[in-house]
Amino acid sequence: MDLQPIDYQVNGKPYTGFLADGSGGRKAPGILVAHEGGGMTSHPKDRARMLAELGYVAFAMDTFGEPVTEIARGREILMALMADPKEFHARIYAALDVLKAQPNVDAGRLAAIGFCFGGTTVLELARSGGDVACVVGFHSGLTPASAAQPGAIKAKVLTCIGTADPIIPPEQREAFAAEMTAAGADWQMLVMGGVGHSFTNPEIDAWNLPGFKYDEAADRRSWAAMRDLFDETLGPVSA
Amino acid sequence: MDLQPIDYQVNGKPYTGFLADGSGGRKAPGILVAHEGGGMTSHPKDRARMLAELGYVAFAMDTFGEPVTEIARGREILMALMADPKEFHARIYAALDVLKAQPNVDAGRLAAIGFCFGGTTVLELARSGGDVACVVGFHSGLTPASAAQPGAIKAKVLTCIGTADPIIPPEQREAFAAEMTAAGADWQMLVMGGVGHSFTNPEIDAWNLPGFKYDEAADRRSWAAMRDLFDETLGPVSA
Repeated sequence: MDLQPIDYQVNGKPYTGFLADGSGGRKAPGILVAHEGGGMTSHPKDRARMLAELGYVAFAMDTFGEPVTEIARGREILMALMADPKEFHARIYAALDVLKAQPNVDAGRLAAIGFCFGGTTVLELARSGGDVACVVGFHSGLTPASAAQPGAIKAKVLTCIGTADPIIPPEQREAFAAEMTAAGADWQMLVMGGVGHSFTNPEIDAWNLPGFKYDEAADRRSWAAMRDLFDETLGPVSA
Repeated sequence: MDLQPIDYQVNGKPYTGFLADGSGGRKAPGILVAHEGGGMTSHPKDRARMLAELGYVAFAMDTFGEPVTEIARGREILMALMADPKEFHARIYAALDVLKAQPNVDAGRLAAIGFCFGGTTVLELARSGGDVACVVGFHSGLTPASAAQPGAIKAKVLTCIGTADPIIPPEQREAFAAEMTAAGADWQMLVMGGVGHSFTNPEIDAWNLPGFKYDEAADRRSWAAMRDLFDETLGPVSA
């Protein structure tokens, strides 16, 4: 499936996301896809395509506004966003607006998924009260830029985390559980034994980062868990 | 669907389980169903029926050999089994043999699910090297009667646990994670925020036990997670 690049602006700065429309011309749920700390690689585009193949309209949002060629630069950008929730939220909601404006998107049936820092991104959407049916974070950083207030979270929340993920230690999972519970969120976490970070990304192994590893079973299982939550919250793809 | 009572013996003592055959006469995967600490109530029978409606041959095993009318008696029996793994294992494997002997069961495609103490029961099957494709424990006690040895677990393991379950505190989940990891098991845990004990059992609310509560969403989600693992490990129902 061909991806359609879409240029948009946030606070005067240009961004380019990629749309994969699997609707076949009928109104379909719209899914926002948020990329890892490595920026707009082929990974989020592949996931947008996979969602389109299921019949959704998916938009791979551009959180960074620039390509990332060095890990240090990606980390610099994401740290700046974590320290500036207002700017972070502006980028998230601008991308969501692009998705909602697509003619084949049923704007009443939206969800967001993200990977690594993209998981943090969609959790930030949920924490800030984003009006989406659900968010799903894969090997997502769980520490908030701005912690959820009680009653704020409307979206149903699913995170999928490996126990061998060096970025997301047990303490972070526990702090997240406490935050979600205090916020009164409807949340689930699929914990996968022995699985490392970036388990959905076949390209990650080339980066040679300790504890980062593609895992086919974890990839498949977390994707199935996402589809279960989509079925529950979005209903049939074409309805 | 009618249930067929099946009498069998373990170490000279009589037991009665209930078979629900959804195979339609073709070879189908066999699923062992293990009951809660409350014994052979309608709950495990209902689950066997639900599995049969999906096309499986399900056998609600009788772990206790007697009806339980008082919680204290159920607790007494299960404590005795936890203290006597040999007897516990004898009852589990005898029930599995009954299931395997059914003419419509494909004995090469077996799984086991259990609820509360029944979750402990199917985990014990996994820990002891039981030759089943997967085990799924719902609000299952995670403390072993006999801890898994490295390399012993052949079955893929899924547990579904609520964070508000007073029987299964976070420390028990962590000890289980450490045990499974040390054993080298393929394991997952679906953690569900704010969900209590016995979340699959609509009858539990009548017992008025603090922290025990039926939860429709958790019931549905954990059942979907089970089906995903069945699809992965057992393949299509009729194959």
